[in-house]
Amino acid sequence: MNAESWHRKDLLGIADLSPEEIRLILDTAESFREVAERPIKKVPTLRGKTVINLFFESSTRTRSSFEIAEKRLSADNMNFSTSGSALEKGESLVDTALNLEAMSPDLVVIRHRAPGVPHLLAARLRSGVINAGDGAHEHPTQALLDAFTIRRHKGRLDGLTVTIVGDIEHSRVVRSNIHLLTKMGSRVRVAGPRTMLPPALEALGVEVHTELEPAIAGADVVMMLRIQLERMNRKLFPSSREYFQRFALTRERLGAAREDAIVMHPGPMNRGVEIASDVADGPQSVILEQVAAGVAVRMAVLYLLSGVREEEG
Amino acid sequence: MNAESWHRKDLLGIADLSPEEIRLILDTAESFREVAERPIKKVPTLRGKTVINLFFESSTRTRSSFEIAEKRLSADNMNFSTSGSALEKGESLVDTALNLEAMSPDLVVIRHRAPGVPHLLAARLRSGVINAGDGAHEHPTQALLDAFTIRRHKGRLDGLTVTIVGDIEHSRVVRSNIHLLTKMGSRVRVAGPRTMLPPALEALGVEVHTELEPAIAGADVVMMLRIQLERMNRKLFPSSREYFQRFALTRERLGAAREDAIVMHPGPMNRGVEIASDVADGPQSVILEQVAAGVAVRMAVLYLLSGVREEEG
Amino acid sequence: MNAESWHRKDLLGIADLSPEEIRLILDTAESFREVAERPIKKVPTLRGKTVINLFFESSTRTRSSFEIAEKRLSADNMNFSTSGSALEKGESLVDTALNLEAMSPDLVVIRHRAPGVPHLLAARLRSGVINAGDGAHEHPTQALLDAFTIRRHKGRLDGLTVTIVGDIEHSRVVRSNIHLLTKMGSRVRVAGPRTMLPPALEALGVEVHTELEPAIAGADVVMMLRIQLERMNRKLFPSSREYFQRFALTRERLGAAREDAIVMHPGPMNRGVEIASDVADGPQSVILEQVAAGVAVRMAVLYLLSGVREEEG
Repeated sequence: MNAESWHRKDLLGIADLSPEEIRLILDTAESFREVAERPIKKVPTLRGKTVINLFFESSTRTRSSFEIAEKRLSADNMNFSTSGSALEKGESLVDTALNLEAMSPDLVVIRHRAPGVPHLLAARLRSGVINAGDGAHEHPTQALLDAFTIRRHKGRLDGLTVTIVGDIEHSRVVRSNIHLLTKMGSRVRVAGPRTMLPPALEALGVEVHTELEPAIAGADVVMMLRIQLERMNRKLFPSSREYFQRFALTRERLGAAREDAIVMHPGPMNRGVEIASDVADGPQSVILEQVAAGVAVRMAVLYLLSGVREEEG
Repeated sequence: MNAESWHRKDLLGIADLSPEEIRLILDTAESFREVAERPIKKVPTLRGKTVINLFFESSTRTRSSFEIAEKRLSADNMNFSTSGSALEKGESLVDTALNLEAMSPDLVVIRHRAPGVPHLLAARLRSGVINAGDGAHEHPTQALLDAFTIRRHKGRLDGLTVTIVGDIEHSRVVRSNIHLLTKMGSRVRVAGPRTMLPPALEALGVEVHTELEPAIAGADVVMMLRIQLERMNRKLFPSSREYFQRFALTRERLGAAREDAIVMHPGPMNRGVEIASDVADGPQSVILEQVAAGVAVRMAVLYLLSGVREEEG
Repeated sequence: MNAESWHRKDLLGIADLSPEEIRLILDTAESFREVAERPIKKVPTLRGKTVINLFFESSTRTRSSFEIAEKRLSADNMNFSTSGSALEKGESLVDTALNLEAMSPDLVVIRHRAPGVPHLLAARLRSGVINAGDGAHEHPTQALLDAFTIRRHKGRLDGLTVTIVGDIEHSRVVRSNIHLLTKMGSRVRVAGPRTMLPPALEALGVEVHTELEPAIAGADVVMMLRIQLERMNRKLFPSSREYFQRFALTRERLGAAREDAIVMHPGPMNRGVEIASDVADGPQSVILEQVAAGVAVRMAVLYLLSGVREEEG
């Protein structure tokens, strides 16, 4: 499969994608990765295209990654956040989106706390829609950047053992990652307190653990999730201290993984809660590489969805 | 009249403009309209020009329309909103504007809740000033985009009957539209509850109605205004349900207008309050075209005021 | 010294700079100054470079000045402010900065209320760091734009008498200015209420006054600082009226300075508190020129730190 055969208007989730499509995105990202290392970090690929970043949930990290990707592709971009928008005046989400679309953007990047909002908009808009996180549902570009990072270090995705640790139930990151990794032939293990594990996880083809050590044993990749401290009040677990004792990735525990295992985290980290600082900054950590991969992967997705080839061909 | 003979530094209101000037803006907008339909939605017209968007009232719609217009003209733009500005530190509006001007912008787009603020600044600044809405006074680019949309559908502005319905007293949109439409030879009717009609409206040359049906009868254009639900507390009308019963545009009521009448709304709409959903989405609605027209009209205004021709000539 | 011999990665404060480095920045700013007067206010100098503006304290003025400077140099820029950032989720400042850096910016402009934060980041980041104000510590580009403005009017910096009046203790502007002016051979006098004068000021080589008149007598430059009205509650002085009576620059008091003295203010001004309106707008005021100088000086600093020459050479 090559860029010419890409036919999707939208990127809504990993669940929809074929392994070939995933591979195409990752290969395309490889070719954009080195742009960040040039003195002139810019290519004219999306010159004259308009991208609207529509964030109904705040996010420095994901928004800025998309923004940098857009600018390095020479697109014109615009940011909208809830505050100050017509939504406060009672306009419906769909009307807001249709109004923005009437200004002829090529692509709309959307984050919303309600699952399915990107799909709803994609069905109504002619513009391409990229899901930048919808509730606890999907966050496809995060899973793609994780896969990109793993592949760079391991040379492949199939046959790897990837352990994901934390609040599995409320994480869109884990959901998208499970879809992607199992499609690409990795074995996925998840671990967390029983209160943070959704029912019926095994149906997704993953191994479920309620203790950290057996989940990590022999893993090629250990991915720690951010603990939402605000959830502690809701009694999902007793305290951040106890969480650290049972589930944090420490140097000692990491020893149970393969010697060449890499450590990942989608950020922002709670050092001393889900991950010890020396592991976060240690030689096996690829956490900052994930951030750099995010820009490359988003450039690839923006490029593939922009329909540049069609119009130029 | 052609672009070379345009001599205004500022666009403050429709009241100041001659019919020739209005026609020039609309004709210029026609030539920019198709930019939004190109694969490369960008022209180099304002390259190296700086435009400051100074919004003291939040507005997703108008601000984003100006922003897209500026980017498609290749201008450098910058957004200021009240929050975080020196105004909170007690600096006067004029000092803020003079300070921004000292950075040599070419144009300043301003929205403010107080009528006359754009005029005050225009008198003090060398830069061109565009009024993007001043209180209940004027909103000239809105009236221009409405006229642009009407002209595209009807082929002309003179001799048409245009009915505007809603809170006539508190609307800058209606004020600018009355100026524009009467100058261009349309007959304007306004309709709304008595509490929302200012005194002495007839002096502006419009027909005033307190019932919807006779106002709509035989109209070429029906323009519904947004009802500010927050005004209901102030007893301007009893409830949104009663407002709907008396003044909302329904399919049945629209039947009294000409068969080829178009339905307009400046947005954001309150579906089920001032307009029924099936009318908003129906075949006579040109509401989303108005949004697209907004970008073209703003590109035209930015271009005409930028003095590009002088400096290049 | 010329641009090729500039070797600093960061601009953290004036205290670190040699007189030659200061002179180089000012000379470079001269060459950028006229860009603002061209019809096309843009040079391709930083095309394809990424600049991140990381403002943890709001600032319309400084941020917009940097933003315009960046755009006129054709850099890609991005703005971050605290609100909505990962910092609210408990991520540390250093993690935030490392994450942003992983996206490969060339330069990071930072403002923070805590002294030393830019230095902390500069030590950890490969990107160049520009201090845009750190607590009451330094604000180097402000001192440079002040010096630029003085030099344009006086033709030199050495041998001048410069009087700075106001809240000396809490001002980063005054600290950077004292460093710069004394390095360049000016005599500096400071004046303010005793409660606003830090101890041991004389050690910095400045003359300290608690009355306005003797401080102004014979001065070439009178620089008034903004009074933080919110500090009045903290009893640093009794009332703005009393402050005006004792320390405001009025026309009469300005008469004690040299006849060709210039009046400066970093803005935003409290007219009628620290400066009389007729002085602020009078013939000796260069306050708006300072703003224009800010853009030129920031273009110079961005250019020198960007390492353009190295990579192109």
